Amino acid sequence: MSKQLPLVAMDACCAPLAREPLTQDQAVELSHLFKAMADPVRLRLLSLIASHAGGEACVCDLTDAFDLTGPTISHHLKVLRESGLVTGDRRGTWIYYRVHPEVLARLSAVLTTTSETVTA
Amino acid sequence: MSKQLPLVAMDACCAPLAREPLTQDQAVELSHLFKAMADPVRLRLLSLIASHAGGEACVCDLTDAFDLTGPTISHHLKVLRESGLVTGDRRGTWIYYRVHPEVLARLSAVLTTTSETVTA
Repeated sequence: MSKQLPLVAMDACCAPLAREPLTQDQAVELSHLFKAMADPVRLRLLSLIASHAGGEACVCDLTDAFDLTGPTISHHLKVLRESGLVTGDRRGTWIYYRVHPEVLARLSAVLTTTSETVTA
Repeated sequence: MSKQLPLVAMDACCAPLAREPLTQDQAVELSHLFKAMADPVRLRLLSLIASHAGGEACVCDLTDAFDLTGPTISHHLKVLRESGLVTGDRRGTWIYYRVHPEVLARLSAVLTTTSETVTA
């Protein structure tokens, strides 16, 4: 159930965008991540997973926060997984989700406007 | 030409999403900003403006970087402006664009995974 994640390009990406312009390739890579976050349900799922005790959450921990059907939640989790923001591992009945902290940290570093960059 | 910017909600928004779950209102607010950044042309425009000498750029500084028509560039700049990520001021012939560093800093802080938050 876990997927190969598109982290290779992110390893090299990016200097803070207030320091130097993004290249076309960097902008395409980042736009996919921001697109995955451009939805309130996905943002709330991401924050519920990231802030959950132990750093992981199963879908059983997530559904009560939403007035949405299981398949809708699953669709949004799939988008987050395919973007590389979270990973999902099946253990027994449930899939357990965990954020990739290095991806969040790199996005944070790209957006920083201070001279210090945030590193993973 | 400058617009009233939706910064009020951002003033209170948000603790790092890895520390506590976003509320519905915070997620809606943030999703608008991420949607504005979910496009490679807009991300490159944002980085060209943010990293430009003096912290501002006119459309005359931006168009050469793209193989796009003026109206297309203008459309993307309008989306960035309406999201509150940049401001535009007409001076003479040109509109000069500038990022709102406090908005970028708050997005950076929301995504940080370290115990330190990035402040504006």
